[in-house]
Amino acid sequence: MGYPMARNLHQAGLLAAVWNRTPAKAARLAQDTGCRAAATPAELAQQCDVVVLCVSADQDMLDLVQMLAPHLAANAIVIDCSTVSAQTAQAAAQTLAARQCAFLDCPVSGGTEGAQQGTLSIMCGGDPAVFERARPVLEAMGRRVLYMGPSGSGQATKAVNQIMVAGINQAVSEALAFAQACGLPLDRVIEATSGGAAASWFLVHRGPNMQRGEFPLGFKVGLHDKDLEIVQRMAAEYNAQLPVVEMTRLHYRRLLAVGQDNEDISSLFRLKQALFAPDRQT
Amino acid sequence: MGYPMARNLHQAGLLAAVWNRTPAKAARLAQDTGCRAAATPAELAQQCDVVVLCVSADQDMLDLVQMLAPHLAANAIVIDCSTVSAQTAQAAAQTLAARQCAFLDCPVSGGTEGAQQGTLSIMCGGDPAVFERARPVLEAMGRRVLYMGPSGSGQATKAVNQIMVAGINQAVSEALAFAQACGLPLDRVIEATSGGAAASWFLVHRGPNMQRGEFPLGFKVGLHDKDLEIVQRMAAEYNAQLPVVEMTRLHYRRLLAVGQDNEDISSLFRLKQALFAPDRQT
Repeated sequence: MGYPMARNLHQAGLLAAVWNRTPAKAARLAQDTGCRAAATPAELAQQCDVVVLCVSADQDMLDLVQMLAPHLAANAIVIDCSTVSAQTAQAAAQTLAARQCAFLDCPVSGGTEGAQQGTLSIMCGGDPAVFERARPVLEAMGRRVLYMGPSGSGQATKAVNQIMVAGINQAVSEALAFAQACGLPLDRVIEATSGGAAASWFLVHRGPNMQRGEFPLGFKVGLHDKDLEIVQRMAAEYNAQLPVVEMTRLHYRRLLAVGQDNEDISSLFRLKQALFAPDRQT
Repeated sequence: MGYPMARNLHQAGLLAAVWNRTPAKAARLAQDTGCRAAATPAELAQQCDVVVLCVSADQDMLDLVQMLAPHLAANAIVIDCSTVSAQTAQAAAQTLAARQCAFLDCPVSGGTEGAQQGTLSIMCGGDPAVFERARPVLEAMGRRVLYMGPSGSGQATKAVNQIMVAGINQAVSEALAFAQACGLPLDRVIEATSGGAAASWFLVHRGPNMQRGEFPLGFKVGLHDKDLEIVQRMAAEYNAQLPVVEMTRLHYRRLLAVGQDNEDISSLFRLKQALFAPDRQT
Protein backbone atom coordinates (compact mmCIF):
# COMPACT_ATOMS: atom_id res chain seq x y z
CA MET A 1 0.00 0.00 0.00
CA GLY A 2 2.73 2.45 1.02
CA TYR A 3 4.55 2.66 -2.29
CA PRO A 4 1.64 3.76 -4.52
CA MET A 5 0.35 6.10 -1.80
CA ALA A 6 3.77 7.78 -1.65
CA ARG A 7 3.86 8.01 -5.45
CA ASN A 8 0.53 9.85 -5.40
CA LEU A 9 1.92 12.28 -2.81
CA HIS A 10 4.88 12.85 -5.14
CA GLN A 11 2.59 13.51 -8.09
CA ALA A 12 0.79 16.14 -6.03
CA GLY A 13 4.16 17.77 -5.29
CA LEU A 14 3.95 16.89 -1.60
CA LEU A 15 6.66 14.26 -1.12
CA ALA A 16 9.84 15.60 0.54
CA ALA A 17 11.46 12.44 1.91
CA VAL A 18 10.78 8.76 2.60
CA TRP A 19 11.90 6.15 5.09
CA ASN A 20 11.25 2.40 5.16
CA ARG A 21 12.31 -0.38 7.49
CA THR A 22 13.73 -2.06 4.37
CA PRO A 23 16.20 0.55 3.03
CA ALA A 24 16.07 -0.81 -0.55
CA LYS A 25 12.36 0.05 -0.76
CA ALA A 26 12.99 3.65 0.29
CA ALA A 27 15.93 3.88 -2.12
CA ARG A 28 13.75 2.68 -5.02
CA LEU A 29 11.07 5.25 -4.26
CA ALA A 30 13.69 8.01 -3.87
CA GLN A 31 15.13 7.06 -7.25
CA ASP A 32 11.69 6.97 -8.91
CA THR A 33 10.58 10.33 -7.51
CA GLY A 34 13.73 12.30 -6.85
CA CYS A 35 12.87 12.75 -3.17
CA ARG A 36 15.35 12.12 -0.33
CA ALA A 37 15.63 8.75 1.40
CA ALA A 38 16.02 9.47 5.12
CA ALA A 39 18.43 7.21 6.99
CA THR A 40 16.28 7.09 10.13
CA PRO A 41 12.77 8.10 11.27
CA ALA A 42 14.48 10.89 13.26
CA GLU A 43 16.02 12.29 10.07
CA LEU A 44 12.63 12.07 8.33
CA ALA A 45 10.96 13.93 11.20
CA GLN A 46 13.44 16.80 10.82
CA GLN A 47 12.63 17.18 7.11
CA CYS A 48 8.82 17.09 7.08
CA ASP A 49 5.87 19.14 8.39
CA VAL A 50 3.56 16.20 7.85
CA VAL A 51 4.62 12.56 8.22
CA VAL A 52 2.44 9.79 6.78
CA LEU A 53 2.80 6.31 8.33
CA CYS A 54 1.62 2.98 6.98
CA VAL A 55 2.62 -0.15 8.96
CA SER A 56 1.03 -3.50 9.85
CA ALA A 57 0.86 -3.74 13.64
CA ASP A 58 -0.19 -1.58 16.59
CA GLN A 59 3.20 -1.82 18.33
CA ASP A 60 5.09 -0.91 15.13
CA MET A 61 3.06 2.28 14.85
CA LEU A 62 3.60 3.21 18.51
CA ASP A 63 7.35 2.52 18.20
CA LEU A 64 7.57 4.72 15.11
CA VAL A 65 5.72 7.57 16.83
CA GLN A 66 8.19 7.30 19.74
CA MET A 67 11.09 7.58 17.28
CA LEU A 68 9.56 10.52 15.41
CA ALA A 69 8.23 12.56 18.33
CA PRO A 70 11.48 14.06 19.74
CA HIS A 71 12.52 15.33 16.28
CA LEU A 72 9.33 16.85 14.91
CA ALA A 73 8.83 20.60 14.74
CA ALA A 74 6.03 22.09 16.84
CA ASN A 75 2.67 21.85 15.06
CA ALA A 76 3.88 18.99 12.85
CA ILE A 77 1.20 16.44 11.98
CA VAL A 78 1.58 12.66 11.99
CA ILE A 79 -1.00 10.92 9.81
CA ASP A 80 -1.29 7.18 10.44
CA CYS A 81 -2.85 5.20 7.57
CA SER A 82 -2.30 1.82 9.30
CA THR A 83 -5.18 -0.20 10.66
CA VAL A 84 -4.77 -0.38 14.44
CA SER A 85 -7.20 -0.17 17.37
CA ALA A 86 -8.91 3.09 18.33
CA GLN A 87 -7.12 2.89 21.71
CA THR A 88 -3.71 2.65 20.01
CA ALA A 89 -4.56 5.71 17.94
CA GLN A 90 -5.52 7.60 21.10
CA ALA A 91 -2.23 6.61 22.77
CA ALA A 92 -0.22 7.89 19.78
CA ALA A 93 -2.20 11.14 19.82
CA GLN A 94 -1.33 11.62 23.51
CA THR A 95 2.37 10.99 22.93
CA LEU A 96 2.45 13.62 20.17
CA ALA A 97 0.28 16.13 22.04
CA ALA A 98 2.91 16.15 24.81
CA ARG A 99 5.32 17.45 22.11
CA GLN A 100 2.88 20.07 20.73
CA CYS A 101 2.40 17.88 17.64
CA ALA A 102 -0.83 16.54 16.21
CA PHE A 103 -1.96 13.07 15.24
CA LEU A 104 -4.70 11.94 12.85
CA ASP A 105 -5.82 8.31 12.62
CA CYS A 106 -6.55 7.89 8.91
CA PRO A 107 -6.97 4.23 7.94
CA VAL A 108 -7.84 3.55 4.33
CA SER A 109 -10.09 1.24 2.34
CA GLY A 110 -10.06 0.28 -1.31
CA GLY A 111 -7.19 -2.19 -1.58
CA THR A 112 -4.06 -2.03 -3.68
CA GLU A 113 -6.13 -0.90 -6.69
CA GLY A 114 -7.38 2.10 -4.71
CA ALA A 115 -3.88 2.95 -3.50
CA GLN A 116 -2.51 2.87 -7.05
CA GLN A 117 -5.30 4.90 -8.59
CA GLY A 118 -5.58 7.37 -5.71
CA THR A 119 -9.20 6.36 -5.15
CA LEU A 120 -8.93 5.17 -1.54
CA SER A 121 -11.55 5.96 1.04
CA ILE A 122 -9.83 7.59 4.01
CA MET A 123 -11.57 7.66 7.41
CA CYS A 124 -10.13 10.30 9.71
CA GLY A 125 -10.15 10.82 13.46
CA GLY A 126 -8.60 13.70 15.40
CA ASP A 127 -8.89 17.44 15.87
CA PRO A 128 -11.08 18.96 13.11
CA ALA A 129 -8.74 21.95 12.58
CA VAL A 130 -5.77 19.61 12.15
CA PHE A 131 -7.84 17.56 9.71
CA GLU A 132 -8.44 20.70 7.60
CA ARG A 133 -4.70 21.49 7.59
CA ALA A 134 -3.93 17.92 6.49
CA ARG A 135 -6.65 17.76 3.85
CA PRO A 136 -4.40 18.42 0.79
CA VAL A 137 -2.18 15.50 1.82
CA LEU A 138 -5.15 13.19 2.33
CA GLU A 139 -6.81 14.22 -0.92
CA ALA A 140 -3.62 13.40 -2.83
CA MET A 141 -3.99 9.76 -1.71
CA GLY A 142 -7.76 9.23 -1.67
CA ARG A 143 -10.93 10.18 -3.45
CA ARG A 144 -13.27 9.99 -0.46
CA VAL A 145 -11.74 11.73 2.55
CA LEU A 146 -14.09 11.88 5.52
CA TYR A 147 -13.76 13.38 8.98
CA MET A 148 -15.36 10.91 11.40
CA GLY A 149 -14.87 12.50 14.84
CA PRO A 150 -12.32 12.72 17.67
CA SER A 151 -9.13 10.69 17.93
CA GLY A 152 -9.81 6.98 17.32
CA SER A 153 -12.92 7.59 15.18
CA GLY A 154 -11.06 6.83 11.96
CA GLN A 155 -9.96 3.47 13.34
CA ALA A 156 -13.45 2.72 14.65
CA THR A 157 -14.80 3.39 11.14
CA LYS A 158 -12.16 1.13 9.62
CA ALA A 159 -13.22 -1.60 12.08
CA VAL A 160 -16.79 -1.16 10.80
CA ASN A 161 -15.46 -1.51 7.25
CA GLN A 162 -13.58 -4.71 8.09
CA ILE A 163 -16.68 -6.28 9.69
CA MET A 164 -18.58 -5.54 6.48
CA VAL A 165 -15.84 -7.03 4.31
CA ALA A 166 -15.85 -10.19 6.45
CA GLY A 167 -19.59 -10.66 6.06
CA ILE A 168 -19.56 -9.89 2.35
CA ASN A 169 -16.71 -12.35 1.80
CA GLN A 170 -18.83 -14.94 3.63
CA ALA A 171 -21.82 -14.02 1.48
CA VAL A 172 -20.11 -14.10 -1.90
CA SER A 173 -17.94 -17.18 -1.29
CA GLU A 174 -20.82 -19.26 0.11
CA ALA A 175 -23.18 -18.19 -2.68
CA LEU A 176 -20.73 -18.86 -5.51
CA ALA A 177 -19.73 -22.26 -4.07
CA PHE A 178 -23.45 -23.11 -4.11
CA ALA A 179 -23.69 -21.85 -7.70
CA GLN A 180 -20.77 -24.02 -8.73
CA ALA A 181 -22.32 -27.09 -7.06
CA CYS A 182 -25.53 -26.39 -9.04
CA GLY A 183 -23.53 -26.37 -12.29
CA LEU A 184 -24.27 -22.72 -13.06
CA PRO A 185 -21.88 -20.65 -15.21
CA LEU A 186 -20.18 -18.43 -12.59
CA ASP A 187 -19.45 -15.54 -14.96
CA ARG A 188 -23.14 -15.16 -15.79
CA VAL A 189 -24.10 -15.66 -12.13
CA ILE A 190 -21.82 -12.75 -11.22
CA GLU A 191 -23.36 -10.63 -13.96
CA ALA A 192 -26.92 -11.54 -12.96
CA THR A 193 -26.49 -10.96 -9.23
CA SER A 194 -24.40 -7.80 -9.48
CA GLY A 195 -27.32 -5.78 -10.84
CA GLY A 196 -29.68 -6.04 -7.88
CA ALA A 197 -29.98 -6.24 -4.12
CA ALA A 198 -26.97 -8.60 -3.88
CA ALA A 199 -24.60 -6.20 -5.65
CA SER A 200 -21.24 -5.59 -3.98
CA TRP A 201 -17.73 -4.41 -4.83
CA PHE A 202 -16.46 -7.77 -3.61
CA LEU A 203 -18.64 -9.78 -6.00
CA VAL A 204 -17.43 -7.84 -9.03
CA HIS A 205 -13.75 -7.62 -8.01
CA ARG A 206 -13.24 -10.94 -6.18
CA GLY A 207 -15.94 -13.21 -7.65
CA PRO A 208 -13.77 -13.77 -10.75
CA ASN A 209 -10.99 -15.11 -8.44
CA MET A 210 -13.45 -17.75 -7.28
CA GLN A 211 -14.40 -18.63 -10.84
CA ARG A 212 -10.72 -19.11 -11.78
CA GLY A 213 -9.75 -20.79 -8.49
CA GLU A 214 -6.88 -18.31 -8.15
CA PHE A 215 -6.59 -15.83 -5.30
CA PRO A 216 -3.84 -13.31 -6.00
CA LEU A 217 -3.34 -10.43 -3.52
CA GLY A 218 -5.47 -8.38 -2.88
CA PHE A 219 -5.67 -8.45 0.84
CA LYS A 220 -3.95 -11.16 2.84
CA VAL A 221 -5.98 -13.56 4.99
CA GLY A 222 -3.52 -12.98 7.84
CA LEU A 223 -3.95 -9.19 7.73
CA HIS A 224 -7.74 -9.32 7.68
CA ASP A 225 -7.60 -11.80 10.55
CA LYS A 226 -5.42 -9.31 12.46
CA ASP A 227 -7.93 -6.51 11.76
CA LEU A 228 -10.80 -8.69 12.96
CA GLU A 229 -8.88 -9.44 16.14
CA ILE A 230 -8.73 -5.67 16.69
CA VAL A 231 -12.50 -5.54 16.11
CA GLN A 232 -13.03 -8.25 18.71
CA ARG A 233 -10.92 -6.38 21.26
CA MET A 234 -12.94 -3.22 20.64
CA ALA A 235 -16.26 -5.13 20.87
CA ALA A 236 -15.10 -6.79 24.11
CA GLU A 237 -15.23 -3.37 25.75
CA TYR A 238 -19.01 -3.55 25.28
CA ASN A 239 -19.10 -7.24 26.32
CA ALA A 240 -20.25 -7.91 22.77
CA GLN A 241 -19.46 -10.94 20.61
CA LEU A 242 -20.01 -10.45 16.90
CA PRO A 243 -21.31 -13.59 15.12
CA VAL A 244 -20.04 -12.73 11.61
CA VAL A 245 -16.61 -11.82 12.96
CA GLU A 246 -16.41 -14.96 15.12
CA MET A 247 -17.35 -17.22 12.21
CA THR A 248 -14.95 -15.54 9.81
CA ARG A 249 -11.98 -15.75 12.18
CA LEU A 250 -12.77 -19.43 12.72
CA HIS A 251 -12.71 -19.96 8.95
CA TYR A 252 -9.56 -17.86 8.46
CA ARG A 253 -7.75 -19.91 11.11
CA ARG A 254 -8.52 -23.00 9.03
CA LEU A 255 -7.07 -21.31 5.94
CA LEU A 256 -3.98 -20.16 7.85
CA ALA A 257 -3.50 -23.67 9.26
CA VAL A 258 -3.00 -24.98 5.71
CA GLY A 259 -0.60 -22.19 4.76
CA GLN A 260 -2.93 -19.86 2.83
CA ASP A 261 -1.63 -16.69 4.45
CA ASN A 262 -0.29 -15.26 1.21
CA GLU A 263 -3.54 -15.49 -0.72
CA ASP A 264 -6.34 -12.99 -0.99
CA ILE A 265 -9.20 -13.31 1.52
CA SER A 266 -11.44 -14.48 -1.34
CA SER A 267 -9.69 -17.87 -0.92
CA LEU A 268 -12.41 -18.42 1.72
CA PHE A 269 -14.15 -19.84 -1.36
CA ARG A 270 -12.07 -23.02 -0.93
CA LEU A 271 -13.64 -23.75 2.47
CA LYS A 272 -17.10 -23.17 1.03
CA GLN A 273 -16.42 -25.50 -1.89
CA ALA A 274 -15.48 -28.18 0.64
CA LEU A 275 -19.04 -27.95 2.05
CA PHE A 276 -20.22 -29.53 -1.20
CA ALA A 277 -17.45 -32.13 -1.51
CA PRO A 278 -18.99 -35.61 -1.35
CA ASP A 279 -16.05 -37.01 0.66
CA ARG A 280 -15.72 -34.18 3.15
CA GLN A 281 -15.20 -34.81 6.86
CA THR A 282 -18.38 -33.96 8.74
CA MET B 1 -43.95 -6.78 -7.14
CA GLY B 2 -46.66 -7.86 -9.61
CA TYR B 3 -48.42 -4.53 -10.01
CA PRO B 4 -45.45 -2.42 -11.17
CA MET B 5 -44.15 -5.29 -13.34
CA ALA B 6 -47.56 -5.46 -15.09
CA ARG B 7 -47.55 -1.68 -15.51
CA ASN B 8 -44.21 -1.90 -17.28
CA LEU B 9 -45.60 -4.59 -19.60
CA HIS B 10 -48.51 -2.23 -20.35
CA GLN B 11 -46.14 0.66 -21.11
CA ALA B 12 -44.34 -1.59 -23.61
CA GLY B 13 -47.71 -2.34 -25.26
CA LEU B 14 -47.57 -5.99 -24.17
CA LEU B 15 -50.34 -6.29 -21.57
CA ALA B 16 -53.54 -7.95 -22.86
CA ALA B 17 -55.23 -9.13 -19.68
CA VAL B 18 -54.65 -9.62 -15.96
CA TRP B 19 -55.85 -11.95 -13.22
CA ASN B 20 -55.26 -11.81 -9.46
CA ARG B 21 -56.43 -13.99 -6.59
CA THR B 22 -57.81 -10.75 -5.11
CA PRO B 23 -60.21 -9.50 -7.83
CA ALA B 24 -60.04 -5.87 -6.66
CA LYS B 25 -56.30 -5.78 -7.46
CA ALA B 26 -56.90 -7.00 -11.01
CA ALA B 27 -59.78 -4.54 -11.43
CA ARG B 28 -57.56 -1.63 -10.34
CA LEU B 29 -54.85 -2.59 -12.82
CA ALA B 30 -57.43 -3.06 -15.60
CA GLN B 31 -58.82 0.39 -14.87
CA ASP B 32 -55.34 1.98 -14.80
CA THR B 33 -54.19 0.38 -18.05
CA GLY B 34 -57.35 -0.33 -20.07
CA CYS B 35 -56.54 -4.06 -20.29
CA ARG B 36 -59.08 -6.80 -19.55
CA ALA B 37 -59.47 -8.33 -16.08
CA ALA B 38 -59.92 -12.08 -16.62
CA ALA B 39 -62.42 -13.77 -14.31
CA THR B 40 -60.33 -16.95 -14.00
CA PRO B 41 -56.82 -18.21 -14.87
CA ALA B 42 -58.52 -20.31 -17.59
CA GLU B 43 -59.97 -17.17 -19.20
CA LEU B 44 -56.55 -15.49 -18.99
CA ALA B 45 -54.89 -18.49 -20.66
CA GLN B 46 -57.30 -18.20 -23.60
CA GLN B 47 -56.43 -14.53 -24.16
CA CYS B 48 -52.61 -14.58 -23.99
CA ASP B 49 -49.67 -16.06 -25.92
CA VAL B 50 -47.41 -15.41 -22.98
CA VAL B 51 -48.53 -15.56 -19.33
CA VAL B 52 -46.36 -14.02 -16.61
CA LEU B 53 -46.81 -15.38 -13.06
CA CYS B 54 -45.67 -13.86 -9.78
CA VAL B 55 -46.76 -15.66 -6.58
CA SER B 56 -45.27 -16.39 -3.16
CA ALA B 57 -45.17 -20.18 -2.70
CA ASP B 58 -44.14 -23.25 -4.68
CA GLN B 59 -47.55 -24.89 -4.40
CA ASP B 60 -49.37 -21.72 -5.53
CA MET B 61 -47.26 -21.65 -8.68
CA LEU B 62 -47.89 -25.34 -9.44
CA ASP B 63 -51.65 -24.92 -8.83
CA LEU B 64 -51.75 -21.96 -11.19
CA VAL B 65 -49.90 -23.87 -13.91
CA GLN B 66 -52.42 -26.70 -13.52
CA MET B 67 -55.28 -24.22 -14.00
CA LEU B 68 -53.66 -22.52 -17.00
CA ALA B 69 -52.35 -25.59 -18.86
CA PRO B 70 -55.59 -27.00 -20.35
CA HIS B 71 -56.55 -23.60 -21.80
CA LEU B 72 -53.28 -22.38 -23.34
CA ALA B 73 -52.73 -22.42 -27.10
CA ALA B 74 -49.94 -24.66 -28.42
CA ASN B 75 -46.54 -22.92 -28.19
CA ALA B 76 -47.76 -20.55 -25.49
CA ILE B 77 -45.11 -19.58 -22.94
CA VAL B 78 -45.57 -19.39 -19.18
CA ILE B 79 -42.96 -17.17 -17.49
CA ASP B 80 -42.75 -17.60 -13.74
CA CYS B 81 -41.17 -14.67 -11.90
CA SER B 82 -41.81 -16.19 -8.45
CA THR B 83 -39.01 -17.50 -6.28
CA VAL B 84 -39.49 -21.26 -5.91
CA SER B 85 -37.13 -24.23 -5.91
CA ALA B 86 -35.38 -25.41 -9.08
CA GLN B 87 -37.22 -28.72 -8.72
CA THR B 88 -40.61 -26.96 -8.64
CA ALA B 89 -39.66 -25.08 -11.80
CA GLN B 90 -38.74 -28.34 -13.50
CA ALA B 91 -42.07 -29.89 -12.47
CA ALA B 92 -44.00 -26.95 -13.95
CA ALA B 93 -41.98 -27.21 -17.16
CA GLN B 94 -42.91 -30.89 -17.47
CA THR B 95 -46.61 -30.20 -16.94
CA LEU B 96 -46.59 -27.61 -19.70
CA ALA B 97 -44.40 -29.64 -22.07
CA ALA B 98 -47.10 -32.35 -22.00
CA ARG B 99 -49.42 -29.69 -23.49
CA GLN B 100 -46.90 -28.49 -26.12
CA CYS B 101 -46.41 -25.30 -24.10
CA ALA B 102 -43.17 -23.87 -22.77
CA PHE B 103 -42.07 -22.73 -19.34
CA LEU B 104 -39.32 -20.34 -18.29
CA ASP B 105 -38.24 -19.93 -14.67
CA CYS B 106 -37.44 -16.22 -14.44
CA PRO B 107 -37.08 -15.07 -10.84
CA VAL B 108 -36.15 -11.44 -10.34
CA SER B 109 -33.90 -9.37 -8.09
CA GLY B 110 -33.87 -5.67 -7.34
CA GLY B 111 -36.77 -5.19 -4.95
CA THR B 112 -39.86 -3.05 -5.27
CA GLU B 113 -37.70 -0.15 -6.52
CA GLY B 114 -36.45 -2.31 -9.38
CA ALA B 115 -39.95 -3.50 -10.24
CA GLN B 116 -41.25 0.07 -10.37
CA GLN B 117 -38.40 1.45 -12.43
CA GLY B 118 -38.15 -1.58 -14.73
CA THR B 119 -34.55 -2.13 -13.62
CA LEU B 120 -34.92 -5.66 -12.24
CA SER B 121 -32.32 -8.34 -12.85
CA ILE B 122 -34.07 -11.38 -14.36
CA MET B 123 -32.40 -14.80 -14.20
CA CYS B 124 -33.84 -17.22 -16.74
CA GLY B 125 -33.90 -20.99 -17.04
CA GLY B 126 -35.43 -23.07 -19.84
CA ASP B 127 -35.10 -23.74 -23.55
CA PRO B 128 -32.82 -21.09 -25.18
CA ALA B 129 -35.09 -20.68 -28.24
CA VAL B 130 -38.09 -20.07 -25.98
CA PHE B 131 -36.00 -17.57 -24.02
CA GLU B 132 -35.30 -15.63 -27.24
CA ARG B 133 -39.03 -15.58 -28.11
CA ALA B 134 -39.83 -14.30 -24.62
CA ARG B 135 -37.06 -11.70 -24.56
CA PRO B 136 -39.23 -8.63 -25.40
CA VAL B 137 -41.54 -9.46 -22.50
CA LEU B 138 -38.61 -9.91 -20.11
CA GLU B 139 -36.88 -6.75 -21.27
CA ALA B 140 -40.04 -4.74 -20.62
CA MET B 141 -39.75 -5.67 -16.93
CA GLY B 142 -36.00 -5.75 -16.34
CA ARG B 143 -32.78 -4.07 -17.30
CA ARG B 144 -30.49 -7.09 -16.92
CA VAL B 145 -32.06 -10.17 -18.51
CA LEU B 146 -29.77 -13.20 -18.47
CA TYR B 147 -30.14 -16.73 -19.78
CA MET B 148 -28.63 -19.05 -17.16
CA GLY B 149 -29.17 -22.55 -18.57
CA PRO B 150 -31.77 -25.34 -18.68
CA SER B 151 -35.00 -25.42 -16.69
CA GLY B 152 -34.37 -24.63 -13.00
CA SER B 153 -31.21 -22.59 -13.68
CA GLY B 154 -33.02 -19.29 -13.14
CA GLN B 155 -34.20 -20.46 -9.71
CA ALA B 156 -30.74 -21.80 -8.83
CA THR B 157 -29.32 -18.36 -9.69
CA LYS B 158 -31.98 -16.66 -7.55
CA ALA B 159 -31.01 -18.99 -4.68
CA VAL B 160 -27.41 -17.81 -5.12
CA ASN B 161 -28.68 -14.21 -5.00
CA GLN B 162 -30.63 -14.84 -1.80
CA ILE B 163 -27.59 -16.40 -0.08
CA MET B 164 -25.61 -13.27 -0.95
CA VAL B 165 -28.34 -10.97 0.36
CA ALA B 166 -28.44 -12.95 3.63
CA GLY B 167 -24.70 -12.59 4.14
CA ILE B 168 -24.63 -8.93 3.17
CA ASN B 169 -27.52 -8.18 5.53
CA GLN B 170 -25.49 -9.91 8.28
CA ALA B 171 -22.43 -7.87 7.29
CA VAL B 172 -24.09 -4.46 7.14
CA SER B 173 -26.31 -4.85 10.21
CA GLU B 174 -23.50 -6.19 12.43
CA ALA B 175 -21.07 -3.51 11.24
CA LEU B 176 -23.48 -0.60 11.70
CA ALA B 177 -24.56 -1.83 15.16
CA PHE B 178 -20.86 -1.81 16.09
CA ALA B 179 -20.54 1.70 14.62
CA GLN B 180 -23.49 2.91 16.67
CA ALA B 181 -22.03 1.39 19.86
CA CYS B 182 -18.76 3.26 19.13
CA GLY B 183 -20.71 6.53 18.87
CA LEU B 184 -19.88 7.10 15.21
CA PRO B 185 -22.19 9.17 12.98
CA LEU B 186 -23.88 6.46 10.87
CA ASP B 187 -24.52 8.67 7.85
CA ARG B 188 -20.81 9.43 7.50
CA VAL B 189 -19.92 5.78 8.21
CA ILE B 190 -22.16 4.74 5.32
CA GLU B 191 -20.53 7.34 3.08
CA ALA B 192 -17.00 6.33 4.11
CA THR B 193 -17.50 2.58 3.72
CA SER B 194 -19.53 2.69 0.51
CA GLY B 195 -16.54 3.89 -1.51
CA GLY B 196 -14.24 0.90 -1.05
CA ALA B 197 -14.03 -2.86 -0.64
CA ALA B 198 -17.07 -2.91 1.69
CA ALA B 199 -19.37 -1.25 -0.86
CA SER B 200 -22.75 -2.88 -1.45
CA TRP B 201 -26.22 -2.04 -2.74
CA PHE B 202 -27.58 -3.04 0.66
CA LEU B 203 -25.39 -0.58 2.58
CA VAL B 204 -26.50 2.36 0.45
CA HIS B 205 -30.18 1.39 0.21
CA ARG B 206 -30.82 -0.23 3.62
CA GLY B 207 -28.12 1.30 5.84
CA PRO B 208 -30.23 4.47 6.20
CA ASN B 209 -33.08 2.30 7.61
CA MET B 210 -30.69 1.23 10.35
CA GLN B 211 -29.69 4.82 11.06
CA ARG B 212 -33.35 5.86 11.41
CA GLY B 213 -34.43 2.70 13.26
CA GLU B 214 -37.27 2.27 10.75
CA PHE B 215 -37.57 -0.71 8.42
CA PRO B 216 -40.26 -0.11 5.80
CA LEU B 217 -40.75 -2.74 3.07
CA GLY B 218 -38.60 -3.53 1.06
CA PHE B 219 -38.49 -7.24 1.36
CA LYS B 220 -40.29 -9.05 4.16
CA VAL B 221 -38.34 -11.08 6.70
CA GLY B 222 -40.84 -13.93 6.24
CA LEU B 223 -40.33 -14.03 2.46
CA HIS B 224 -36.54 -14.04 2.66
CA ASP B 225 -36.79 -16.78 5.30
CA LYS B 226 -38.96 -18.77 2.88
CA ASP B 227 -36.39 -18.29 0.10
CA LEU B 228 -33.57 -19.41 2.41
CA GLU B 229 -35.57 -22.51 3.29
CA ILE B 230 -35.67 -23.27 -0.46
CA VAL B 231 -31.89 -22.77 -0.54
CA GLN B 232 -31.46 -25.23 2.33
CA ARG B 233 -33.60 -27.82 0.56
CA MET B 234 -31.50 -27.43 -2.59
CA ALA B 235 -28.23 -27.63 -0.61
CA ALA B 236 -29.47 -30.73 1.20
CA GLU B 237 -29.32 -32.57 -2.12
CA TYR B 238 -25.53 -32.16 -1.88
CA ASN B 239 -25.53 -33.00 1.86
CA ALA B 240 -24.33 -29.43 2.35
CA GLN B 241 -25.14 -27.10 5.23
CA LEU B 242 -24.50 -23.43 4.55
CA PRO B 243 -23.22 -21.50 7.61
CA VAL B 244 -24.39 -18.03 6.53
CA VAL B 245 -27.84 -19.35 5.63
CA GLU B 246 -28.15 -21.34 8.90
CA MET B 247 -27.17 -18.32 10.99
CA THR B 248 -29.50 -15.96 9.13
CA ARG B 249 -32.52 -18.26 9.42
CA LEU B 250 -31.81 -18.61 13.16
CA HIS B 251 -31.80 -14.81 13.47
CA TYR B 252 -34.91 -14.38 11.27
CA ARG B 253 -36.81 -16.87 13.44
CA ARG B 254 -36.06 -14.62 16.44
CA LEU B 255 -37.40 -11.62 14.53
CA LEU B 256 -40.50 -13.53 13.42
CA ALA B 257 -41.09 -14.73 17.01
CA VAL B 258 -41.54 -11.11 18.10
CA GLY B 259 -43.86 -10.28 15.20
CA GLN B 260 -41.47 -8.51 12.84
CA ASP B 261 -42.75 -10.28 9.74
CA ASN B 262 -43.99 -7.10 8.10
CA GLU B 263 -40.70 -5.24 8.28
CA ASP B 264 -37.84 -5.18 5.83
CA ILE B 265 -35.04 -7.72 6.34
CA SER B 266 -32.77 -4.84 7.38
CA SER B 267 -34.58 -5.02 10.75
CA LEU B 268 -31.94 -7.69 11.51
CA PHE B 269 -30.15 -4.55 12.79
CA ARG B 270 -32.33 -4.77 15.95
CA LEU B 271 -30.83 -8.15 16.89
CA LYS B 272 -27.33 -6.82 16.30
CA GLN B 273 -28.00 -3.74 18.44
CA ALA B 274 -29.03 -6.10 21.25
CA LEU B 275 -25.50 -7.60 21.17
CA PHE B 276 -24.29 -4.28 22.58
CA ALA B 277 -27.10 -3.77 25.11
CA PRO B 278 -25.66 -3.77 28.63
CA ASP B 279 -28.66 -5.63 30.06
CA ARG B 280 -28.95 -8.30 27.40
CA GLN B 281 -29.51 -11.97 28.27
CA THR B 282 -26.29 -13.92 27.62
